[in-house]
Amino acid sequence: MTPLFPPFTIGVDLGGTNTVFAIVDSVGHIIARDSFPTATSSVEEWADTLALKASAMIKDTQLEEQIIGIGIGAPCANAITGSIEAATDLPWPSPIPLATMVQARMKLPVTVTNDANAAAIGEMMYGAAAGMKNFIELTLGTGVGAGIVCDGHLLSGTRGFAGELGHVTFPFAADRPCGCGRKGCLQTVASAKGIVTTTNHLLHVSSEPSSLRNIPGEKLTAKLVCEAALEGDKLAKEVYTYTGHCLGKAAAEFAALTDPEAIILFGGVANAGELLLEPMTESFRENALHLYRDRVRFLISGLNGADAALLGAASLPHIKN
Amino acid sequence: MTPLFPPFTIGVDLGGTNTVFAIVDSVGHIIARDSFPTATSSVEEWADTLALKASAMIKDTQLEEQIIGIGIGAPCANAITGSIEAATDLPWPSPIPLATMVQARMKLPVTVTNDANAAAIGEMMYGAAAGMKNFIELTLGTGVGAGIVCDGHLLSGTRGFAGELGHVTFPFAADRPCGCGRKGCLQTVASAKGIVTTTNHLLHVSSEPSSLRNIPGEKLTAKLVCEAALEGDKLAKEVYTYTGHCLGKAAAEFAALTDPEAIILFGGVANAGELLLEPMTESFRENALHLYRDRVRFLISGLNGADAALLGAASLPHIKN
Repeated sequence: MTPLFPPFTIGVDLGGTNTVFAIVDSVGHIIARDSFPTATSSVEEWADTLALKASAMIKDTQLEEQIIGIGIGAPCANAITGSIEAATDLPWPSPIPLATMVQARMKLPVTVTNDANAAAIGEMMYGAAAGMKNFIELTLGTGVGAGIVCDGHLLSGTRGFAGELGHVTFPFAADRPCGCGRKGCLQTVASAKGIVTTTNHLLHVSSEPSSLRNIPGEKLTAKLVCEAALEGDKLAKEVYTYTGHCLGKAAAEFAALTDPEAIILFGGVANAGELLLEPMTESFRENALHLYRDRVRFLISGLNGADAALLGAASLPHIKN
Repeated sequence: MTPLFPPFTIGVDLGGTNTVFAIVDSVGHIIARDSFPTATSSVEEWADTLALKASAMIKDTQLEEQIIGIGIGAPCANAITGSIEAATDLPWPSPIPLATMVQARMKLPVTVTNDANAAAIGEMMYGAAAGMKNFIELTLGTGVGAGIVCDGHLLSGTRGFAGELGHVTFPFAADRPCGCGRKGCLQTVASAKGIVTTTNHLLHVSSEPSSLRNIPGEKLTAKLVCEAALEGDKLAKEVYTYTGHCLGKAAAEFAALTDPEAIILFGGVANAGELLLEPMTESFRENALHLYRDRVRFLISGLNGADAALLGAASLPHIKN
């Protein structure tokens, strides 16, 4: 049996479809896990279900005395208010005073934050940023977010909205409308949707044969493009070369903000690995100020993909921010 | 007599031409000041002169027991190493272990940082950012720099190079070469040199009458453009309208980094005041993500212009960073 390292925390990954939670030790071992559908009739019912199931799990594992807190990662969650604010993909009206609700039921300190910040702290606790005090976690998923750790501290800002790097605009995206109502956001290129947009564009302007041409337009996903690229499909690889170049240009600007030692890619789009890192590194070198050139490492998240959100959430109670 | 507020610090503004130093109380009153030419034969001689003159001043004021430290603001000074690194406008070869040299002579803790960071801390201690935990101090002078305070902490980064916002690039500056060897840096527009470039461009493409047309090209300075603008010269005002619009676009991107409550303009270019703030506010509103729109204030530094660098330096020993 793997040795366990107390203290323990409860991590909760509140997703649009399912809520997954687990008891995790201080080095990221998952001791026990459970899940239930998020779409309960009300958020009160959701909190009741979580409290019931988590309490049962704590009892089963006999770890009552060694659990120091609960961390919840949720879309649009604000660490300062402990609430979910204006989340469009949850079945309840916002704002939701999540920390207060769960704390009242569980009698344990509750820390709440958004997915990108949870990923950054998880990375620092259990992943590729172990031991780092300065890095930027770029989450490339449905949208693009970031958790910025500078001088050992996760940046929060006046109202908890620091690190919205997916909405920094760039000339390479100038023609792409973003869901936020503006144009040119990094998110329009480096998100899963951005990958699909770039693929469709390349399929249109290039005559390169590609397995992706056999997929009906409405069924094309970033995951399929990634799989094709990893299998060597030339056009699909070109999509990641382009995306990596754009990310390198963005990273060249981001480096000037916090002088990070690494920029770490997290999320579905990052599964392309070296196909993304290589052009990213190259275009960073071409574009960064000399102070940062050759000084920033580009890494893929060290958090196990399937459990990354859960581990990120579980890491929250360990951090005094 | 103004009441004084202990403890006291010594602020040192190490400039290319003169070194100014002063004993300052904890709310920014200057008790005594002195200066000497920076261009001594060696940096050791400079440190000897500073130690001699500062010790005499301390003795005169009879504040020996109440001085907690020395803060030095200097170009290219690195707070992490305590050294001046690659400064091109000082008469000695870099790196210069400034903190160590002064500490050995003065027997007081010495804190060193660059001009922009000193301005940010001075602003927080004695100026427009009093009581703020989240703001960006943009220094618009010979170059453009920044001190970023997030969650009450001045960002330093891996090697002390956080906040190089003058070298973030923008489409509005895409044609302008920067001293760093790249193109499009904010500094090429928003520095004193950028003001002169924009003025020369406007003088060339516009037929608007302007008092600036009487100044020989090589004698045109940002200070003269500012004076003309403040006197109502239409073309000179147009220079600041353009510069303010560019700064507003830049601020729209910077807001997404640290969710600041204010962006504060410091330095010679900021003397244009409202002529700069008004277009800046307008273009910020047009360009910022909804999360930040109407949430960020734009202010001119509250530090007395002539003493700002000195006060910034004097504030350093008060900060545990």
